[in-house]
Amino acid sequence: MTEKLWRKNLINIEPYVAGEQPKNENIIKLNANENPYPPSAGVQEVLRKKDIFDLKKYPSADAVPLKAALAERYGLAPENVFCGNGSDDVLATAFRAFFNSDKPIFYPDITYSFYPVWCELLKIPYETKPVDGNFLINVKDFYPENGGVVIPNPNAPTAIGVGKDFIIDLLEHNRDVIVIIDEAYVDFGRYSCVELIKEYDNLIVTQTFSKSRSLAGMRIGMAFAQPELISYMHAVKDSYNSYPLDQLAIETGIASLNDEKYFRDTVEKIKATRDRSAKAFREMGFKVTDSETNFLFVSHPDIPAEEIFTYTREKGIFIRYFKKPVIDKWLRITIGTDEQMDKLIAAVKECIESR
Amino acid sequence: MTEKLWRKNLINIEPYVAGEQPKNENIIKLNANENPYPPSAGVQEVLRKKDIFDLKKYPSADAVPLKAALAERYGLAPENVFCGNGSDDVLATAFRAFFNSDKPIFYPDITYSFYPVWCELLKIPYETKPVDGNFLINVKDFYPENGGVVIPNPNAPTAIGVGKDFIIDLLEHNRDVIVIIDEAYVDFGRYSCVELIKEYDNLIVTQTFSKSRSLAGMRIGMAFAQPELISYMHAVKDSYNSYPLDQLAIETGIASLNDEKYFRDTVEKIKATRDRSAKAFREMGFKVTDSETNFLFVSHPDIPAEEIFTYTREKGIFIRYFKKPVIDKWLRITIGTDEQMDKLIAAVKECIESR
Repeated sequence: MTEKLWRKNLINIEPYVAGEQPKNENIIKLNANENPYPPSAGVQEVLRKKDIFDLKKYPSADAVPLKAALAERYGLAPENVFCGNGSDDVLATAFRAFFNSDKPIFYPDITYSFYPVWCELLKIPYETKPVDGNFLINVKDFYPENGGVVIPNPNAPTAIGVGKDFIIDLLEHNRDVIVIIDEAYVDFGRYSCVELIKEYDNLIVTQTFSKSRSLAGMRIGMAFAQPELISYMHAVKDSYNSYPLDQLAIETGIASLNDEKYFRDTVEKIKATRDRSAKAFREMGFKVTDSETNFLFVSHPDIPAEEIFTYTREKGIFIRYFKKPVIDKWLRITIGTDEQMDKLIAAVKECIESR
Repeated sequence: MTEKLWRKNLINIEPYVAGEQPKNENIIKLNANENPYPPSAGVQEVLRKKDIFDLKKYPSADAVPLKAALAERYGLAPENVFCGNGSDDVLATAFRAFFNSDKPIFYPDITYSFYPVWCELLKIPYETKPVDGNFLINVKDFYPENGGVVIPNPNAPTAIGVGKDFIIDLLEHNRDVIVIIDEAYVDFGRYSCVELIKEYDNLIVTQTFSKSRSLAGMRIGMAFAQPELISYMHAVKDSYNSYPLDQLAIETGIASLNDEKYFRDTVEKIKATRDRSAKAFREMGFKVTDSETNFLFVSHPDIPAEEIFTYTREKGIFIRYFKKPVIDKWLRITIGTDEQMDKLIAAVKECIESR
């Protein structure tokens, strides 16, 4: 076999092996932090009424109508808003736009697993800051000079959130770099810092329609910041892919924003189920972090996490187990419907009693 | 005013100023190479029947059902197919995956204007090869050692295509680098080289649903190649944004593929209108390249292109004028319906007669 010389120009990256997607419809899927409820009925209306004649045209390159709707909902100007193909696209765009220092960016060691992936791809130096034994982030770790900061609030997979004081402290000690607060789960939490973009011109806040708005299937994410930072995100987007949101993503996103009551009701329902489920897990002897998200992070003092994961899996309930240092004693459990959580709790109880 | 130190880490990129999008619905829009006909009626059916309950779930990360449908339509295996958020996303992914040499990549000097933009963003060295006085690409220009090759076939904005002999010649002289053939317009042309991926393991062919399939609004692009190259594109995608196609992009794309007759009829209709329009422009004294696309590239020997552009614009018909060296005597005109083209031809005739 002759050597393939073209291989020498391939990107040096590990080909990714995709995670398991259960094909069986009866599986209870509590492993991807998806919402158990459908999106607003307004979304169905959009699809029913859509005239496909429009689809021959390109979408609005900057998702202008969705930016306008978001600006209105959040009390901002459209110039404060950037929209992308899910918050991963938004975050990757922000990393590229803002993290161009020789100094390392800082983020917590236990956090969203995509941050190091973007840093590798975009050749951004980084340094992780260890959370403490209770998974708390120490704001003082983020004081030293750096090339930028990313903090998810609430954090994943720990489910733990921080309040306004923490964010202000972080921002006051990081005036000379861009600070990204990744608020993917914030609608289930206590404090969103979107209000602070007016005061801090180096703050970017990212959010998503995939969790609290039940639109993971439509890939809609957004960032909020002062217009100068937003303009840089647009410049990066337009140098890569000008039209990341298709017409139906823009239109279903708007329909979701227009139904504030349904949104709030769904979020409240999930929070109630979450708090009830947390109590049940504590009663079964689990440690459970104080979740400000749509998932629980739990650990049993005696039973290995992997054993519970395998047991519930055999019962047709998928939860998330991370075979990684520090968190390999823990499980991440997405909040489903009350009925789904009851089934999970019963299965976990069985697992404990069967030992 | 204190200096903003965070500015020093911003990406060094020119903030993009978006092109004009006419808001008036009565405008005849022949400036974006969109299809004048709607997509297949099957697309409407998909939207009517879609159960929004599914939208709470993430889409298939690799657009598996769409890859399967494309593989079947093109007589390939799903492992030969990559899907992305429009062919811009697909091309950007390919540039990153395959153009990692210190040697420059080669592409024609008159071509799709996004190639240099990706090269700048991704720091890929490049060298352009001048087309001749008739806008023809000289294959011998692509023989010297290089870091990769991109050729659009047919080319834009020239509308000129090449045949199998050219592509084979190009590939035979470029066995040690990746060769991308960008077939955005190929369904209106004479030769697609997708068949050659079986023989050439260094060939990538990209296509789109935005032109011949009337789905610009849904952002669907694809690449065909041998499985090893496709696996590298997946690795890059998964390091950037795992879910670029939403559920409805996947499903409307499949509906379009399932209606082969409508697709062929639409393409034939556009080709007939194109050939008739080319004849009319030649009769008015224009030079017109032999178009293998859904647009014409025309130049009048006496009347400045910008003058015609401005005249028809005032009549509510938008065509494309490039204020750039070499091509600033030319106009790019998307093929509309027969009625739209008749209006354009009448306006151009008026412009000529009014001088």
